[in-house]
Amino acid sequence: MTIFPLLSTQHDHTPAYTERLGTPTGSTVRVRLRTTLPVTEVKFKLVRVGEIETHPAREIDPVGGAPGRWFEADLPVHEGRVRYAWQLNFSNDHLHLTGLGLHRTRRGFRSWFSYLAGHVAPEWAWESVFYQIFPDRFRNGDPSNDVQTGEYLYGDRVVERVDWHTPIDAWGDIHGHYGGDLNGITQALPYLQDLGVTGLWLTPIFVSPSNHRYDITDYRHIDPHLGGDEAWTELAGAAESAGMRLVLDGVFNHVGNENALFRAALEGDTAPERSLFTWRDEPGKPPYHAFFDVPTLPKIDYRNPAAVQEFFSGEESVVRHWLRRGAAGWRLDVAHMIGTGGTDEDNLPLHQTLKRAAREERPDAYVFGERFYDPEHALNGQGEDGSMNYHGFGLPVMQWLARGNLLFEPSALGGEELADMLWDAYHALPPQVALSMFNVLESHDIPRALYRVGNDRTLFLAAFTLLMGYAGVPCTYYGSEVGLSQSRRGAMPWCREPMPWDEDGWDHNLRGGVKALIAVRRRTLALQRGNLRFLHAEDDAVAFLREYTHEDGHTDRAVVLASRQPQSHEVALTLPGGTWLDAMTGEPLRGGQVTVQAAGGRILVQ
Amino acid sequence: MTIFPLLSTQHDHTPAYTERLGTPTGSTVRVRLRTTLPVTEVKFKLVRVGEIETHPAREIDPVGGAPGRWFEADLPVHEGRVRYAWQLNFSNDHLHLTGLGLHRTRRGFRSWFSYLAGHVAPEWAWESVFYQIFPDRFRNGDPSNDVQTGEYLYGDRVVERVDWHTPIDAWGDIHGHYGGDLNGITQALPYLQDLGVTGLWLTPIFVSPSNHRYDITDYRHIDPHLGGDEAWTELAGAAESAGMRLVLDGVFNHVGNENALFRAALEGDTAPERSLFTWRDEPGKPPYHAFFDVPTLPKIDYRNPAAVQEFFSGEESVVRHWLRRGAAGWRLDVAHMIGTGGTDEDNLPLHQTLKRAAREERPDAYVFGERFYDPEHALNGQGEDGSMNYHGFGLPVMQWLARGNLLFEPSALGGEELADMLWDAYHALPPQVALSMFNVLESHDIPRALYRVGNDRTLFLAAFTLLMGYAGVPCTYYGSEVGLSQSRRGAMPWCREPMPWDEDGWDHNLRGGVKALIAVRRRTLALQRGNLRFLHAEDDAVAFLREYTHEDGHTDRAVVLASRQPQSHEVALTLPGGTWLDAMTGEPLRGGQVTVQAAGGRILVQ
Repeated sequence: MTIFPLLSTQHDHTPAYTERLGTPTGSTVRVRLRTTLPVTEVKFKLVRVGEIETHPAREIDPVGGAPGRWFEADLPVHEGRVRYAWQLNFSNDHLHLTGLGLHRTRRGFRSWFSYLAGHVAPEWAWESVFYQIFPDRFRNGDPSNDVQTGEYLYGDRVVERVDWHTPIDAWGDIHGHYGGDLNGITQALPYLQDLGVTGLWLTPIFVSPSNHRYDITDYRHIDPHLGGDEAWTELAGAAESAGMRLVLDGVFNHVGNENALFRAALEGDTAPERSLFTWRDEPGKPPYHAFFDVPTLPKIDYRNPAAVQEFFSGEESVVRHWLRRGAAGWRLDVAHMIGTGGTDEDNLPLHQTLKRAAREERPDAYVFGERFYDPEHALNGQGEDGSMNYHGFGLPVMQWLARGNLLFEPSALGGEELADMLWDAYHALPPQVALSMFNVLESHDIPRALYRVGNDRTLFLAAFTLLMGYAGVPCTYYGSEVGLSQSRRGAMPWCREPMPWDEDGWDHNLRGGVKALIAVRRRTLALQRGNLRFLHAEDDAVAFLREYTHEDGHTDRAVVLASRQPQSHEVALTLPGGTWLDAMTGEPLRGGQVTVQAAGGRILVQ
Repeated sequence: MTIFPLLSTQHDHTPAYTERLGTPTGSTVRVRLRTTLPVTEVKFKLVRVGEIETHPAREIDPVGGAPGRWFEADLPVHEGRVRYAWQLNFSNDHLHLTGLGLHRTRRGFRSWFSYLAGHVAPEWAWESVFYQIFPDRFRNGDPSNDVQTGEYLYGDRVVERVDWHTPIDAWGDIHGHYGGDLNGITQALPYLQDLGVTGLWLTPIFVSPSNHRYDITDYRHIDPHLGGDEAWTELAGAAESAGMRLVLDGVFNHVGNENALFRAALEGDTAPERSLFTWRDEPGKPPYHAFFDVPTLPKIDYRNPAAVQEFFSGEESVVRHWLRRGAAGWRLDVAHMIGTGGTDEDNLPLHQTLKRAAREERPDAYVFGERFYDPEHALNGQGEDGSMNYHGFGLPVMQWLARGNLLFEPSALGGEELADMLWDAYHALPPQVALSMFNVLESHDIPRALYRVGNDRTLFLAAFTLLMGYAGVPCTYYGSEVGLSQSRRGAMPWCREPMPWDEDGWDHNLRGGVKALIAVRRRTLALQRGNLRFLHAEDDAVAFLREYTHEDGHTDRAVVLASRQPQSHEVALTLPGGTWLDAMTGEPLRGGQVTVQAAGGRILVQ
């Protein structure tokens, strides 16, 4: 665990310390280090052709008023991801500064700072607060387009129209349609604006027979039960006027079995569509590779260049199609599974192709993958901008707060290990990637956060404080702000209850807290773009510091603190000097050793 | 830092826990876990197509007499490197067991256990103790082949014959030849056998103008000044009779500028050899890529398949040539630099090609790279068997003991961070790779260990204890055993003094200690093949446990302890239960909480 008690030494990606991000290969970037330690010499190290090169760093005049001496070096951007570090010499010791912190040993390259050449992040996303909508369950804006009971057969069962106020009561409810649609989302834009969110992630909206729509029949049309293409045009226009960006859910690992390409492929061995899928002959399995061997979800084989064209890079690809029609980016379903020959082979090159096409179409498109497990190997800046941050944020944070994992297995995870785990995952990512991670506490795939903490509002707000404060793009899940929870244990379908629109049923206090935290996030530069370091960890509390140092040396700071004690929790910690303000109440606080109330979470700003 | 106070839970690569190593892709391997914790359930997890699959582990009858319950699972070996882990459930908690240890969070995949499909390690190397010889400085067996002063011009200077008893007194001594040769090594085999070493790594012996011979003129002949090809034949035969294996130094990144291929390439643009090198036109640099831009060391361009054939894979390649003539393996000079187009691109595929050819020629060839920096990314089992372990062993260990790094910059590195750093590097390697790492304290490229510890014999023996005890193949450097040191600060040439053969000048006590430690290593299975876990770390002492559990559940154990206090250091630590013996003296010791004298290093066995 790396806690920085002294905050003595600083280098990060922000302007005073790194001249600029994403400069092209072949150029040079000025990088700086500030330290209050009694150094005799500072050296700069970088990796080139597998060797470590060491260069002296030159002392410069202090930048701004922060204490300490400043040193500068030139970083040659000689390849796509340049690894670098600093060495601080003293009369009787020496230290290495890497992304992991100050150590006496030269750590492994994984922990060195990373500079990404030519990488342009969709920085609007860093300033955004997202809201996830599962369209069938958010709002029914047009009852005339509702799925009707018996309207069609899905698998061996007819679909059913379910009344909005009927609690989910059965497993496998993919046949039950509540009637939510894009018209409803358009109607709810004022509600969402009032809440303060600025981005929406919609789970799939294309033509599809199930209520979740991850089994897509037609990628180029909006499901008529969601209002069809017209409803999209209306939503996209209204969202743009409202300053709200829309991220769509790209299901590019598999199609639904009613998809025309798959129907054509079934016609016989000579069908040109045949090789868009991977055929096989294995007992007990479908005759083609499929998502978890589910026959209705045939897996796309990107060994076939026609598949790459169809979905990613072709002039009329699905990726391009919707970016042209107003989508601001793509969330990529099971991004880690996409590949060739029925496997995940060539996953990273395929994601590079996908992102390149997206950026050609819309230079600030935000592309992030669902990678439910450790995504580090995929996040070198060349493929997705980031990934859904289950591994390095949402799962461990909620396991700590809820004292159990997403399967409700009990856990005694303490704050020290939580901070260690988060730090380990964070520090190894290039800075633009870390800031582009899509942070969630909950989603349509895992249990609701409020339910996991026993519907305790204080604990939920502690979680929400961490969500708004952490490095990455925060996304909340529809309904949590008003207290929407679950009727029973499990994930789907219980986490997909319809949004209650009767305000009498809302928890207005909770909504007030959520709204205030969203506002803090939106007005605090350090939370959007700052560096991250852990300040404090104990069994029931963690705190971290976010810092953004402007070109003139002025530093914006925020401290984010959370406790898992539901009533009251006085936490003693050391804040950097100066005067701090509670971001919610405006109450002032002097830096140094302080004891603060941490229950429900706190954000302090400077 | 992961210290295991309880040693409660065990899974490793040894037979009781892993049915067998290196089984081919497509098969299944039985793996087991033992725990004394009050588990309610044990689950087995593996990564497939980017997903984590979870399977129940079944409880089995205890294997052997170790305390605890045993669980078993089947590991499907579905790809080259399969990542897996265990989950232990309790009534009110759950833990994950990865290669990093027991944690409450699911760690990143880097820390999960690795199973390498189809990987066959050169296991003889695990049982070996190596001795590094710099041939010009080891022993002059035939004065008639000595380089004579003025015999030839090297660069702009004539070469010089230097008398064996002349201390090195100038930088850049590459023109001074002391006259050591292969005949001398053959003569010294009884000495080496008596010392107990069973493998020799010879720095380059092929025709070359410098005394270090890293600038090779002719890869297919032994330098006449080392006795020529006949001397090799004689040495190889005698070594085989003596049970001593010879590993040669393969300089495959660059050739010497007198090499026939390079001379031919200089003939003009149309020479077929031209494209064995990478030509360029950059002011102030040689017109071809070269090792650190040194004109006498033109870099080989493996974009040209003829280069791959010539050195690695061709029927008469250099790699094959010497394996056919008795070499047991290759140490690969600057392995990390080898590549295409003047860069290190394609480094890993080239190493795969090299190793494949070596193994075809000699199925147990031991191939390891000089990777002076963090080698983890290259060690997935497909290329080199291991690498020289500067990063994860020699450099941090000596920095700790010498209180300074290899540049003599002072360091206050403590035992806690040392253990943390060693553990971080070790745990991320697949087990066969970790056991094939080539561990050194010193070499012809860095300062002598004895010199670095101020010629303190106790500290040197502490270092040597760690070398003999650590996971990997130990290699000592010629002369250290009799007290050969340096006349002044620096690395080369000061670390290359000639071996003193006058026994009156030897430190016989030191040699006795070294010899005894080598003998312990050679008779202790747990040190050769065991798992590794740290038991203890404090500022001035570290201890680790090596364990090998046989198929019947019987465990061979060794504890290795070292201190950096030169006089006396009583260290309190907890040993696993049972009776222990000091491996050197036979003195018995009961397990549990003990206080032992650690100065000079201790190895305890069970």
